[in-house]
Amino acid sequence: MDQIIKGSQSLTFANAPYLISAASVTGSKEAEGPLGKLFDMTSEDDLFGAQTWEEAESTMQKEACVLALGKAHVAAEEVRYLFGGDLLRQGIATSMGVEGLQIPIFGLYGACSTSGEALALAAMSAAAGYGEYMLAVTSSHFGSAEKEFRFPLGYASQRPLSAHWTVTGSGAFLVRSAGTKAGSSARSAQNTAESHVRIAGVTVGKIVDYGLKDSQNMGACMAPAAMDTIVQNFEDMDRTERDYDRIITGDLGYVGQSILFDLVRGKGYDIRERHLDCGMTIFDQQTQDTHAGGSGCGCAAVTLASFVLPKIEKGEWKRVLFVPTGALMSTVSFNEGASVPGIAHGIVLEHC
Amino acid sequence: MDQIIKGSQSLTFANAPYLISAASVTGSKEAEGPLGKLFDMTSEDDLFGAQTWEEAESTMQKEACVLALGKAHVAAEEVRYLFGGDLLRQGIATSMGVEGLQIPIFGLYGACSTSGEALALAAMSAAAGYGEYMLAVTSSHFGSAEKEFRFPLGYASQRPLSAHWTVTGSGAFLVRSAGTKAGSSARSAQNTAESHVRIAGVTVGKIVDYGLKDSQNMGACMAPAAMDTIVQNFEDMDRTERDYDRIITGDLGYVGQSILFDLVRGKGYDIRERHLDCGMTIFDQQTQDTHAGGSGCGCAAVTLASFVLPKIEKGEWKRVLFVPTGALMSTVSFNEGASVPGIAHGIVLEHC
Repeated sequence: MDQIIKGSQSLTFANAPYLISAASVTGSKEAEGPLGKLFDMTSEDDLFGAQTWEEAESTMQKEACVLALGKAHVAAEEVRYLFGGDLLRQGIATSMGVEGLQIPIFGLYGACSTSGEALALAAMSAAAGYGEYMLAVTSSHFGSAEKEFRFPLGYASQRPLSAHWTVTGSGAFLVRSAGTKAGSSARSAQNTAESHVRIAGVTVGKIVDYGLKDSQNMGACMAPAAMDTIVQNFEDMDRTERDYDRIITGDLGYVGQSILFDLVRGKGYDIRERHLDCGMTIFDQQTQDTHAGGSGCGCAAVTLASFVLPKIEKGEWKRVLFVPTGALMSTVSFNEGASVPGIAHGIVLEHC
Repeated sequence: MDQIIKGSQSLTFANAPYLISAASVTGSKEAEGPLGKLFDMTSEDDLFGAQTWEEAESTMQKEACVLALGKAHVAAEEVRYLFGGDLLRQGIATSMGVEGLQIPIFGLYGACSTSGEALALAAMSAAAGYGEYMLAVTSSHFGSAEKEFRFPLGYASQRPLSAHWTVTGSGAFLVRSAGTKAGSSARSAQNTAESHVRIAGVTVGKIVDYGLKDSQNMGACMAPAAMDTIVQNFEDMDRTERDYDRIITGDLGYVGQSILFDLVRGKGYDIRERHLDCGMTIFDQQTQDTHAGGSGCGCAAVTLASFVLPKIEKGEWKRVLFVPTGALMSTVSFNEGASVPGIAHGIVLEHC
């Protein structure tokens, strides 16, 4: 099947794969937020019964994968490749989390854009005919992220209003090839019939660096990358904002959103009426004290799984551009004075 | 073009992409080793003119990419996607290193197996028709790795004999689709004619955990994963060790090699006469005090670029199984008592 290369960064799949199931697992604060009732699994205990934040995050990833597989009645052995990542150094939440599934794995790192990266590669692999099922999973955990990037929770450090609150959550997504070939089994056809969401195309992001250095204002650091990928998607696919029911960024938050609107307007587009940010959707800023909004690999993933996909599935939204955004930094790069560039990957999701 | 799925973890490309150029950049210790004369660029100054080890590592990545592109007379703008990674937390050597190239990027983490992961995804993307050129790059740096995983160099800590010496180096690889379709330009055909190396297939690795916890003996931690991927490749592709001129692991070193031989023998194969380990090849253990051997994302990458590929290019070796190996751990997982599982990705390289 011929793939269609669009513009300089995008692909449109000739035989677009289906997103056949998704699962979301979150912590207690997320359960109390506006999307709380939509998550598949939430835990009162943010340690998820484990001894450490890292193990807790691993547990969420495993549960999210098992739930996504279970919803589609697909066994782990049937999944060809897994694409997964998290925010922790050397991606240990993923390697500890999915080890038990024993699926051949590609470990990824794209900061908070990783859910987009994982979905892009899963869709590309399924569309290329490299296997029937691909699994994409990402996670973040407030406790492990604070330890990794900022201060141990016990310090009770104060946070500026531009700071984000890392989401404790993991989202997993099962992608299935369109399977028009001989390999398509009766059972697969049945699964396909059940899904009304296709990954129609992707826009792979570049690293965009406006020279910002404030790791406590990641919305500002990531907004230029979000703009770059959104505008590139429009140009590559010969579209405008009017071709999407929603344009959904990952975790720009209140600060990043206003910058994004300005930057996009500078390119001649106005996305204000169609924009939604997962970081602003998952928490209630007024009552939950989350400042700029939610963030983390898990933020966009669980919002997509619990809130966005059901609307596409039902046809309420026909076409969505999902653009998780990441800030590329570490404590080492920050302490050494490096800037915090951003990256964003665009995933075109369509009702079918 | 139909892809051929082999067994449970492997792919054989119907229209195998070419590995059209490769470049290696290393530090001073590597320059003094057995492969010293083969590297494209070496530096007396292990800081490569930068202020920090991390910046130095970034510089190597950038230089390796520019060299690989230059050798093939391909401009960065012509590269569709870049697949890159390193060992540092949040992959900052890669994001800082390749930022200037402005190629849409997939950030990867597979510990020292990342060169295999990057080559696999680059080949899969090229073979699927997602673009003409794909770039794969990985790096490691002794200074940044010691800081990341062990002790600051200034402590002058002693190392056990089972410990590895992280290679200061970066390898970049330019992959080109076979281009039998209309999209193939005259210029592309010319490049294709110049290359005699194809990426014929891949075996994507699983996480293999024998419960070992000694981060100073990574050869032992990774050997089970190397065995698993090598044996899976044989089974998936209906081959034995006799179908390969060389089976080349990444950085098992002396300790890991002997374990690998035993484990593979337990599965009914004997790879002793055809095995080569990049970590044992890049340094002279007797005179360079490198203990178990070299390691790091850069070890397998620069050995492949400088030593292995020219032999395949000339036809001295007709078919090679390249299996970089990674140990999945961080200082946090280690300090929390987690085991150190391994992963290995297999790349089938053929003379054509």
